This record gives sequence, structure tokens and C-alpha cells, in this order.
Amino acid sequence: MSEKAFQDYYPDDYSYCYGCGRLNPAGLHIKTYWDGDETISRFTPRPEHMAVPGFVYGGLIASLIDCNGTGAAAAAIYRAEGRPLDSLPAVRCVTASLHVDYLKPTPLGPELEIRGRISEVKGRKVTVDITVSADGVVTATGRVVAVQIPENFVMAEKKIEN
Amino acid sequence: MSEKAFQDYYPDDYSYCYGCGRLNPAGLHIKTYWDGDETISRFTPRPEHMAVPGFVYGGLIASLIDCNGTGAAAAAIYRAEGRPLDSLPAVRCVTASLHVDYLKPTPLGPELEIRGRISEVKGRKVTVDITVSADGVVTATGRVVAVQIPENFVMAEKKIEN
Repeated sequence: MSEKAFQDYYPDDYSYCYGCGRLNPAGLHIKTYWDGDETISRFTPRPEHMAVPGFVYGGLIASLIDCNGTGAAAAAIYRAEGRPLDSLPAVRCVTASLHVDYLKPTPLGPELEIRGRISEVKGRKVTVDITVSADGVVTATGRVVAVQIPENFVMAEKKIEN
Repeated sequence: MSEKAFQDYYPDDYSYCYGCGRLNPAGLHIKTYWDGDETISRFTPRPEHMAVPGFVYGGLIASLIDCNGTGAAAAAIYRAEGRPLDSLPAVRCVTASLHVDYLKPTPLGPELEIRGRISEVKGRKVTVDITVSADGVVTATGRVVAVQIPENFVMAEKKIEN
């Protein structure tokens, strides 16, 4: 497994994501790593992250899939370009579409394992297929289609706002 | 618009949802109402609910769609059965699948409007098509397929755990 998480390489301007930004103090701090050709995140839901007592909230599961997917997509573009995660220009992806199938209730308590498989890298668009497991049992599957955002996205948008 | 939210009628055991449970003190407290034949939720994201500075986190948008959808599904079943939301047995739905298309960045700041349209009620399964708007502009669309859970689900699952 890679030592630093994909999200640890995000430029500061892209590190405020509620799901995975290291600079968002109130966020979830989801972290994603390479594990061979798969991407992996591990996350233990907080007690309040429940749907009904004993089971994990579906919106949190969607968030875990989302941030694993966008992190995986960025890492896949670096790999496709044959350059390391700390090389420039920095790659950051956002979600174009998200799909989740909830196969069975996800127990609240155990650490969840989120695994992504890069299904396609097509220019700036990456498709990632993801599983969420608890205690070794897959409880949800997901697909994220992510697109690389222009390097100056935050700056450009800030400019538009002003 | 109906006076009480769908979620205000949920039995206590089903009112701990992180997204929409009135008894979850740390939750989002999403509330959903009838507005004619559409369902409506309004939600102002917290400052920490960002993706990148100035824009709403996609996982939160997925959560808003999820809870609007499951609330709408329950309300649609009551309507299909021709009985009011406070009649018994209580109906509660969970998400079987969730799909979100992020059409454009959702600005962080304004109140968001989430509108659901009941596309199909087929026995215990309900399909809801949803839009998320900011300042009158649709920024995301979603589809929730929700299924009614057995009345004794929480009790039965609690029993299994013991």
C-alpha cells in the first residue's frame, strides 16, 4: 500500500473537501491509497452516521464512494501519464456522476473498507467501480465517473465571484 | 405545502437517520413536504459542506437526494394506499439505489431546493426523480429507488444482533 494518501498530495486550494480534505477541520478526512491496481480507503463511521439504529447512513456510504472515486481518478491520471503523485501540474477530479447500489444493510461499528477499480481512463474522464465492505462482506457497490478539472478552476471561479 | 414534514411522522425507531432523523442531534435534519404532486426539501449547507471553496460537497448533494427520495417514497405509498401520513402501520423506506448527475458546480451559500417527482409506485418499490437547485438553477439531478422495509425491521435486526 502506498504510504501517503492521494489526498495528501492535493494542492491546498483543493484540500477543503468535506469528505476528504485535510484542511477541513469538520470534515470526514477520507484517505485513499493504491493497493496494487486497486484503490483503498478505510473509514470507521461515527456513531451519529446511522440510518436506523445499528446501520450506516446511505448518504455516508455515497460520500465514501464519491471521495474514493475522485481520489482514484486523479491517481489513475498520474499513472496513465507515467508520473508520480507529487509531480506538477497537480491533478484534481470532480464527480460527474455517482451511482450506488445498496445490497444489504451496512452494520454501524466496524471499520469499512472501500475498494476502487479503475475501469476506464479516457482523456480527462475516469470511471471507477467501487465496493464497500464491512467485516469482509460487500454491502454496497458504486460507480463514479470523474472528470479532471482545469488547473486554475478555483482561481477562475474566485475571479468570477469577485 | 403540507404543514408537517414526512420525517415528523416517522416512528421514533426510524428517526435517528443522520440525514433526516429528528432524534439525531448531530444530523442534518433534512425535511420533506408535499408541494402538490412534488416533494420538496429546503436545505442550507453548512460552511464546512464544501467540495472546493465556494461550492457544495457532492456527498452532501447525494445525501439531500437520498433523504428526499426515501421520504417521498414513504409519502407516495401512503397516498397510493389512500391514507394519511399519521395512520398505521407506519411506512418507512430505505434506498435500494441512488444515482446522481452533477450538472454544474453548486454554489455554497444559498439555500438549496430539492424537488422530487414520484415516477413509479410498484408494490413496496418506489422510484423518485429529483432535482437540486440553487438560486433557481438546477445543478444536479438524481434518481432514488426506495423500498419499503418491514414494519418490524429494527426490532428484528436488534434481535439478530443479540
